[in-house]
Amino acid sequence: MTNSSDIPQLPSTDPLQNPPQLLTGNWYEYPVTAHPHTTDYAGIVWHGSYIAWLEEARVECLAQKGINFAELVAWGCDLPVVELAIRYHQPIQMGTRVIVKTQMAGINGVRVNWDYQIQSADGKHLYATARVTLVPVDREKGKIMRQLPAAVKDALTKLADG
Amino acid sequence: MTNSSDIPQLPSTDPLQNPPQLLTGNWYEYPVTAHPHTTDYAGIVWHGSYIAWLEEARVECLAQKGINFAELVAWGCDLPVVELAIRYHQPIQMGTRVIVKTQMAGINGVRVNWDYQIQSADGKHLYATARVTLVPVDREKGKIMRQLPAAVKDALTKLADG
Amino acid sequence: MTNSSDIPQLPSTDPLQNPPQLLTGNWYEYPVTAHPHTTDYAGIVWHGSYIAWLEEARVECLAQKGINFAELVAWGCDLPVVELAIRYHQPIQMGTRVIVKTQMAGINGVRVNWDYQIQSADGKHLYATARVTLVPVDREKGKIMRQLPAAVKDALTKLADG
Amino acid sequence: MTNSSDIPQLPSTDPLQNPPQLLTGNWYEYPVTAHPHTTDYAGIVWHGSYIAWLEEARVECLAQKGINFAELVAWGCDLPVVELAIRYHQPIQMGTRVIVKTQMAGINGVRVNWDYQIQSADGKHLYATARVTLVPVDREKGKIMRQLPAAVKDALTKLADG
Repeated sequence: MTNSSDIPQLPSTDPLQNPPQLLTGNWYEYPVTAHPHTTDYAGIVWHGSYIAWLEEARVECLAQKGINFAELVAWGCDLPVVELAIRYHQPIQMGTRVIVKTQMAGINGVRVNWDYQIQSADGKHLYATARVTLVPVDREKGKIMRQLPAAVKDALTKLADG
Repeated sequence: MTNSSDIPQLPSTDPLQNPPQLLTGNWYEYPVTAHPHTTDYAGIVWHGSYIAWLEEARVECLAQKGINFAELVAWGCDLPVVELAIRYHQPIQMGTRVIVKTQMAGINGVRVNWDYQIQSADGKHLYATARVTLVPVDREKGKIMRQLPAAVKDALTKLADG
Repeated sequence: MTNSSDIPQLPSTDPLQNPPQLLTGNWYEYPVTAHPHTTDYAGIVWHGSYIAWLEEARVECLAQKGINFAELVAWGCDLPVVELAIRYHQPIQMGTRVIVKTQMAGINGVRVNWDYQIQSADGKHLYATARVTLVPVDREKGKIMRQLPAAVKDALTKLADG
Repeated sequence: MTNSSDIPQLPSTDPLQNPPQLLTGNWYEYPVTAHPHTTDYAGIVWHGSYIAWLEEARVECLAQKGINFAELVAWGCDLPVVELAIRYHQPIQMGTRVIVKTQMAGINGVRVNWDYQIQSADGKHLYATARVTLVPVDREKGKIMRQLPAAVKDALTKLADG
């Protein structure tokens, strides 16, 4: 056993207790379907397939607020993921249509946090919750920016205000 | 903004400070190469591609200790991921050969934790750290088992002992 | 060099000549966006990402005609892909919104053929053309069925008739 | 039904007859394992997962002959896939260790063809056969090169000679 102080650890939960609850708030809703290619041997969505869904929902949410991600990258600012934490509460069966709900959850220095809830179309099942953290990177220098570009910060602040 | 107490949150770090350190210990080492299909528009490994690498390293580590994952599933016990947390410290360029280091980091009730460090072949760069939590599921009943099957627990305990 | 008579070979074309043409006909149209996770180091959609799009378009086209793929599988009939051929005519840049057009292109014994054209939203660019062949498999026996289930054949015939 | 003369079509075969045969020759062998993330709801490898394996085998085969793909791209020459045809003969079960055999199958103008056979480790089962065609692209101009760079052509010719 090592001193694992640097390993990212989530607060403990008991998977047999404490069912998570749907949160209210100002969420952007992105519908997806559990197509065959997202599933694994168990007939449910493979845990890694969710990561693509989180990204798609985030990119579409930004697009709705006027930030075209491909253009942002073309302009020289990338927004790579530096942290990702996800809890899988219930499996998603092949063919299920689910809603990926996301909202920008605050800016902390250059860190931009996004929260997620993946739920059933009828809102009765919460399949997963997640948080993803992005930082701005200057593509030319290959370094994390010391502050967010003003246009990005403005748009994200509007996102936070709903 | 919502009460996001149910959203999984990692302890805060400052990406501009505090470089993470390589941990010592008894790690299983799984080599992978950053092939084109793992990369994204930035010419580096897409953040979701790491999830497949974590799974491959875990399955191969189990195989080395005598647990054949496909057989375990055929016998009726699945080990799905219920939590995953990952920090991306440095990007991985296409073509880079990296080492995915993993170790079973303890059993907590039915929760089996795995720690990860993804580093360069020469040990000089730490690309990512991660923790993944699995629970045993009875495939027939579709429910989390109240305790780990004895054979699995024995093998995992041996893993923890090195 | 080997006798490669068993290797699937497409008729020869000259990539510097003979631009392919958009076909008319009764196509089902499925819109997708070239999100970051579909791209590779070249900033364009990775050639393997198209395979998921072909599957999604096919499953949604079937759903529109009353065949729920997940239910079909649950009933014991799988429809695996046994052949796939694709030509990539033009790269798709990140962020592009494209239309995956598909149509059932005929039943030949137990073989069900699907044709594809992937084009720009404005119809001016043809990015790829493809053909995918499925056969029905009895999931319990693990064998190719000698004939298509009547309900599937009926629905597919309606598809072919438009 | 349309005039589908532009849709890529493979010569017809009867999936219930004519078992394909293992070809002899000078193949590069690349071992892979059917890990959980490659599988789908049917417990076998999803048909799209093979595309990543074909790419990995090709890149490693080139590396063995002195062509580092990442360096080639950095120098300004990309080798995108322009055609891909694959036949799936037998399903691959989760956990199976398979051999992806590949060889450069000839240069036709600027088109570089690669043949594939995916077989069991013991050589008794042929899971799939495939052909992939690449063309050289000048990354700066974004256009297909009129001829292969000399260094690439030399290395590929050596590949063909074994």
